[in-house]
Amino acid sequence: MKGPPQDRSLPRIDGGITAPLGFTSASLHCGIKAKTGALDLTVVSATRPVSAAGLFTTNLAQAAPVLLSKRHLRQTAGLAQAVVVNSGCANACTGTQGTADAETMARDVASAIGCAPEHVLVASTGVIGVNLKMDRVSPGIRTAIGQLTRGKGSDVARALMTTDPFPKEDAVRIETAAGAFSIGGTAKGSGMIEPNMATMIGLLTTDAQVPPGLLKRALEESARDTFNAITVDGECSTNDTLFAMASGASGVVIDEDNYAVLIDGLLDVSRRLAVEIVRGGEGATKVIRITVEDARTRDDARQVARTIANSPLVKTAVHGADPNWGRIVAASGRAGVQFDVDRETVHVGGVLLFENGLPHDESAPRAAEHMKGPEVDIHVHLGTGGGASATIWTCDLSAEYVRINGEYRT
Amino acid sequence: MKGPPQDRSLPRIDGGITAPLGFTSASLHCGIKAKTGALDLTVVSATRPVSAAGLFTTNLAQAAPVLLSKRHLRQTAGLAQAVVVNSGCANACTGTQGTADAETMARDVASAIGCAPEHVLVASTGVIGVNLKMDRVSPGIRTAIGQLTRGKGSDVARALMTTDPFPKEDAVRIETAAGAFSIGGTAKGSGMIEPNMATMIGLLTTDAQVPPGLLKRALEESARDTFNAITVDGECSTNDTLFAMASGASGVVIDEDNYAVLIDGLLDVSRRLAVEIVRGGEGATKVIRITVEDARTRDDARQVARTIANSPLVKTAVHGADPNWGRIVAASGRAGVQFDVDRETVHVGGVLLFENGLPHDESAPRAAEHMKGPEVDIHVHLGTGGGASATIWTCDLSAEYVRINGEYRT
Repeated sequence: MKGPPQDRSLPRIDGGITAPLGFTSASLHCGIKAKTGALDLTVVSATRPVSAAGLFTTNLAQAAPVLLSKRHLRQTAGLAQAVVVNSGCANACTGTQGTADAETMARDVASAIGCAPEHVLVASTGVIGVNLKMDRVSPGIRTAIGQLTRGKGSDVARALMTTDPFPKEDAVRIETAAGAFSIGGTAKGSGMIEPNMATMIGLLTTDAQVPPGLLKRALEESARDTFNAITVDGECSTNDTLFAMASGASGVVIDEDNYAVLIDGLLDVSRRLAVEIVRGGEGATKVIRITVEDARTRDDARQVARTIANSPLVKTAVHGADPNWGRIVAASGRAGVQFDVDRETVHVGGVLLFENGLPHDESAPRAAEHMKGPEVDIHVHLGTGGGASATIWTCDLSAEYVRINGEYRT
Repeated sequence: MKGPPQDRSLPRIDGGITAPLGFTSASLHCGIKAKTGALDLTVVSATRPVSAAGLFTTNLAQAAPVLLSKRHLRQTAGLAQAVVVNSGCANACTGTQGTADAETMARDVASAIGCAPEHVLVASTGVIGVNLKMDRVSPGIRTAIGQLTRGKGSDVARALMTTDPFPKEDAVRIETAAGAFSIGGTAKGSGMIEPNMATMIGLLTTDAQVPPGLLKRALEESARDTFNAITVDGECSTNDTLFAMASGASGVVIDEDNYAVLIDGLLDVSRRLAVEIVRGGEGATKVIRITVEDARTRDDARQVARTIANSPLVKTAVHGADPNWGRIVAASGRAGVQFDVDRETVHVGGVLLFENGLPHDESAPRAAEHMKGPEVDIHVHLGTGGGASATIWTCDLSAEYVRINGEYRT
């Protein structure tokens, strides 16, 4: 019945994606975006091939850079020296030319920094069904490699943006018995008017030394409750990509014994970036945190939380600051998960609104006050005795979302 | 690659729900709705207990009348003499008082027409979490029973409405070798500002003679591709109910041999009512017909069609008359169904927009012209060789939907 535990928070440091030792970056405007000076190309590089891992969209329609990066990580068994990302064009639904262009991007980076093309990861975000202007991209990559430096990590966050309302980056310092290491991260989220789907790109770096297999496991485990626990509109894109690289430059070695330290750090940075993606969701005016407790299994808890999060009736009610417990109960009831509605309780902003199958409408005004703020907490206790819980973040559904996505492409 | 087959259409007749012989109805304002004269109570009655069947919401949160009607149909093995429906109050999340009130409604009808309470089916639609004003409902039922007549079937359609923009009724006449019979129907759909979920109530009558088991099977089979093939916002309500009653008064006997005639008629009436529900969906300005062909199985075809239908990006694109094939391809790709995107084709209004993994953007203006109309056809061919198809109807997502559902309850 109590609210979810408060998230732990590690000390923040400056520097974003290049805060961890052993990484440099360069970002520039090569000409994919129409607006002069708008950053649209970025390279993040280590000094040699280092441990790397990736998570990718589960959509059957996968962009060329997604397919290429998956192949490279397979070929190298989890090693990469550089990541190149362009914004403004998703290089998705672009056929054999798109495949060739993604390969060219990797080769351009490889020849300029002196590594194998397989050691380069590629991501693209932007309009789909349009080919990359390679006459801009290839020279841009060569210029960028000449400008690699440690002090411009924040430019990477800006170079990823499409119609994101603000850049998203984070970095933390983690003290361990064996010394300190850091984790940096950046991400871009939802907000492409045209055609609005090449959505999430994320990049995490650490100067800890982590074997590739362990890095992959840590990335999967931390993404499950962060990047994979957010939804803006339930849509899964053609380009969703999350990379992690570990330089080892801090000298701190992560193994099974101190794996938890790495997970804590990745969770902390990833959660902050993920919630920022929600905050910057199309038309979003509020961040909604939905916690489901006492489900039979974690999967059940996630499924109920996700169904509530994607319910247009719940999202519009939150937009209107309406403590509409009925919509929350109905969404939980259609989630395909077994529980007894008569044992369910619903709190909004800590205010009890539904219990024993009956409403507490007398408390609605207090819940409505809470909902007028920018962060709305929905808390559902299923009463199964199973004790499993999960949290999903989403945003409200506004008329602005409809406007952004309903505008005719011109 | 070709469009879906045109729907067959039977000759229409007047009379709605009481067009079939053997049914009478009465509808009145008993005082549940605030507006004077607004019909909020209706009774449809046969002259004796006849074959009856029901389909109900799959939501775990089920309203008292849903639970009661399911129990009655079990107790009688598919017999009912009357259906009573109120609008303006869903009698959902109302605890033991709600259960008692639903039982009282059945008893009130039973004692007035002279049958067992188990032979009365009950449905409610409207606000949830609020108890029925039984001091209005019980006298209303007694008055209604005294006014039962054959000529007022259209009032039933009006008495079901909550914020539906228009009443929905239909009736057809079916000629068979053994004589003619008819099917009548009425339904109400989505459109409750407060709190917007006690959504669909449907009622079908026929004067054919159909054994209860066969009527149940026919109702399930016809609903699958009609009432269960529509979606306004993916929400499944606490009160969704569809009843069918067969009086036998035409003398036409339906058995396994001529079962197809009944199905054809039920499909025809149900499809028309279902599409009208979509047309009257909250904030809807367009009806969207999504046909998926050449899936491996019908379930696969339905799943892809439903994912496209519930995609907010597709629904907003249709609202803006944007022939955004990318959103359709991406929605199909995340439906959880196996197919090869490179073999997928997408037509909108008969215009080819996507084929061989590549767009045909040069055709977009022609598709946009089609999308400016009130009915939009989306046709997806998955190219699996499986040959299975399905059609789902939905409406566009407008800022008006957000306004209707985001208004604070006062």
